[in-house]
Amino acid sequence: MTPPRAARPTLAVVGATGAVGTVVLQIVSHHADIWGEIRLLASPRSAGRKLAVRGEEVEVVALDETALAGVDVALFAVPDRVAAQWAPLAAAAGAVVVDTSGVFRTDPEVPLVVPEVNPHAVRMRPHGIVASPHCTTLSMIVALGPLHAEFGLRELVLSSYQAVSSAGREGVRTLRRQLSLVAGTELGTSPGDLRRAVGDDTGPFPEPVALNVVPWAGTADRDGWSSEETALRRETRRILGLPALPVAVTCVRVPVVTGHALTVHARFENDVTVDRAREILATAPGVVLCDDPEAGEFPTPADVVGTDPAWVGRVRRALDDPTALDFFVCADNLRKGAALNATQIAELVVGDRGGGGGARGA
Amino acid sequence: MTPPRAARPTLAVVGATGAVGTVVLQIVSHHADIWGEIRLLASPRSAGRKLAVRGEEVEVVALDETALAGVDVALFAVPDRVAAQWAPLAAAAGAVVVDTSGVFRTDPEVPLVVPEVNPHAVRMRPHGIVASPHCTTLSMIVALGPLHAEFGLRELVLSSYQAVSSAGREGVRTLRRQLSLVAGTELGTSPGDLRRAVGDDTGPFPEPVALNVVPWAGTADRDGWSSEETALRRETRRILGLPALPVAVTCVRVPVVTGHALTVHARFENDVTVDRAREILATAPGVVLCDDPEAGEFPTPADVVGTDPAWVGRVRRALDDPTALDFFVCADNLRKGAALNATQIAELVVGDRGGGGGARGA
Ligand SMILES: NC(=O)c1ccc[n+]([C@@H]2O[C@H](COP(=O)([O-])OP(=O)(O)OC[C@H]3O[C@@H](n4cnc5c(N)ncnc54)[C@H](OP(=O)(O)O)[C@@H]3O)[C@@H](O)[C@H]2O)c1
Ligand SMILES: NC(=O)c1ccc[n+]([C@@H]2O[C@H](COP(=O)([O-])OP(=O)(O)OC[C@H]3O[C@@H](n4cnc5c(N)ncnc54)[C@H](OP(=O)(O)O)[C@@H]3O)[C@@H](O)[C@H]2O)c1
Repeated sequence: MTPPRAARPTLAVVGATGAVGTVVLQIVSHHADIWGEIRLLASPRSAGRKLAVRGEEVEVVALDETALAGVDVALFAVPDRVAAQWAPLAAAAGAVVVDTSGVFRTDPEVPLVVPEVNPHAVRMRPHGIVASPHCTTLSMIVALGPLHAEFGLRELVLSSYQAVSSAGREGVRTLRRQLSLVAGTELGTSPGDLRRAVGDDTGPFPEPVALNVVPWAGTADRDGWSSEETALRRETRRILGLPALPVAVTCVRVPVVTGHALTVHARFENDVTVDRAREILATAPGVVLCDDPEAGEFPTPADVVGTDPAWVGRVRRALDDPTALDFFVCADNLRKGAALNATQIAELVVGDRGGGGGARGA
Repeated sequence: MTPPRAARPTLAVVGATGAVGTVVLQIVSHHADIWGEIRLLASPRSAGRKLAVRGEEVEVVALDETALAGVDVALFAVPDRVAAQWAPLAAAAGAVVVDTSGVFRTDPEVPLVVPEVNPHAVRMRPHGIVASPHCTTLSMIVALGPLHAEFGLRELVLSSYQAVSSAGREGVRTLRRQLSLVAGTELGTSPGDLRRAVGDDTGPFPEPVALNVVPWAGTADRDGWSSEETALRRETRRILGLPALPVAVTCVRVPVVTGHALTVHARFENDVTVDRAREILATAPGVVLCDDPEAGEFPTPADVVGTDPAWVGRVRRALDDPTALDFFVCADNLRKGAALNATQIAELVVGDRGGGGGARGA
């Protein structure tokens, strides 16, 4: 029996007005209603705005210590610097923080959780903070986890096709603005014409992204690798519990609004068969197999946007290596890549404590 | 001393009105003027049209036996079925055929030539036909060849980001039409919205390509691999003379007009260093190294469109394998990927025969 709302845990959505926060509100409105109060927090700029959640209009309040009082679970979907400052304060005030930013993902004392793959990890959270992985990791890890469980992963080579909304609202605005500039023109056919048309207006990206692909996401890490590339390697190792897994990856931005895709070349300890791989993927939680290319069946971002699972297609055994699989995977970077995974973690946190009002006090 | 035009070899550009043919005309207009007559051939639909070449207006004639008479080198840039029918007839009439279609690339008696990598192969042409590789192969092979020569290639994992113009004029028209439909809208944010907006009007592609990426290029080959994927493997092996090279590849179409890109994970016999790899790439013919990501230097299709070389950036040693390099390479699929390579082959054929009028009679 569901307890009355007043007896249920309070959820704060911090960054409720953002690209990820907006989707969190949609998801909690459709999932089983386990929350008591749902409080919407954002910057003072948004205070007073009303947003719909569970069919009701709720007023956004500015993030401050008062707004965090009495919160059981605080789902953070704010820029890194805001998360770095406020997540520890929310935890100190008694909330379990579920953070979608990059700030805590490398902290060994903050678990990095994908509920379909390593749900147990959520319990060890000495700082009261749980991190949700990077959207690119999340877009492929639910497909990789069960294949690893069956065949034993030995090496990964990845390439990404990353949507602009993973750079937030500003990423989407930038692509839309550039698309309006290029539509109906002959741009994209002579050297530098796109760059001249777009000018310095490249938003969060280093180059024009409309009619282009940009092989650089994040900041410089080491030896020529970008921060998103090393994050994908580090997070995959950590979530799968394979600290020495060889991972090579190139992250590339593409002119897609929402929906990350990756090509995956995965080498395993044992020989693989496509039939067994398909069986595993067809039954894996959070995964949909969509794989009959001759009949036009393979996932694309346009098909998966707005959906929860990771969609897998183009499953093939490598032609020259019986231990390797190639496949293509696609997921909504705002859903499984952020809002959905974080909401699932929040639900897991509450479920682990008896599914009721005890979350905060435990 | 250059002989007078009348003494120089006759070039026929077959498919002069197409996406590739148009670029052939630009290139021969800018390269050293080694040709006598340049004859422009296309379908009867185009007969009588005038196109500019070497600063002169030349009338297009319909492809038939008369139009092929007296031709020394016939550069074919027509659909497969037209090449299959007419290339052997042109060769029988005495021309050396340089073909850009897919028809002859798998024929062991037709050399598959990249002038920077295997120029010697052009001499063995028992049928009088030389094939130019697939545009995706050409976009990366000039960078890979010299790295192989230095380090000894042992394995390749590739992912492509393929432009729509490699599907010809119809590919470009399709993307432009779809872009006009999506610009200024909110499309690309809910499941299936793009597909509904675009309708069945997907042109040569199986799915909408604007605001999307499509992991299927070509037709079904075997075991789930597409024809473009197996072609890239087969052609790379053949051009590099490595008949057993393991190659895994996923070909993906992206909403770019012109400019193919690939991510390359290359494993070699010997340990590699990034410094030595950069040195090799910086001096390799037909390659430009553009690799300082912190300063915003990496190639993108928008930078390379309309240029001749393959541009390489993001050169890194794999973090977990001292014998492996990762890099990103980008080239104009209509230039190096087709028209330029074919023109270079044509020039090689003529050069091999003394650079003069003897091409046909030799
Ligand atoms: N987008 C993705 O695909 C994705 C995936 C995984 C993880 N993430 C991470 O999720 C987080 C949010 O990303 P996003 O894409 O949703 O960004 P976004 O669209 O730019 O939204 C940012 C949110 O943070 C709020 N905010 C900004 N400054 C604040 C402050 N000083 N105090 C309180 N709230 C503040 C904004 O509120 P106002 O509206 O009031 O400015 C807005 O709600 C980031 O850490 C990002 O790295 C994003
Ligand atoms: N686009 C690329 O990036 C690329 C790269 C490598 C190789 N290729 C290959 O190059 C070839 C040409 O491709 P494209 O992209 O230039 O195609 P395209 O833009 O569709 O042009 C096709 C050309 O073939 C001519 N043609 C069609 N039917 C003919 C016939 N029955 N007799 C004579 N000419 C005929 C057309 O003449 P009309 O104008 O009179 O119809 C036109 O000039 C194809 O085999 C393609 O696979 C293309």
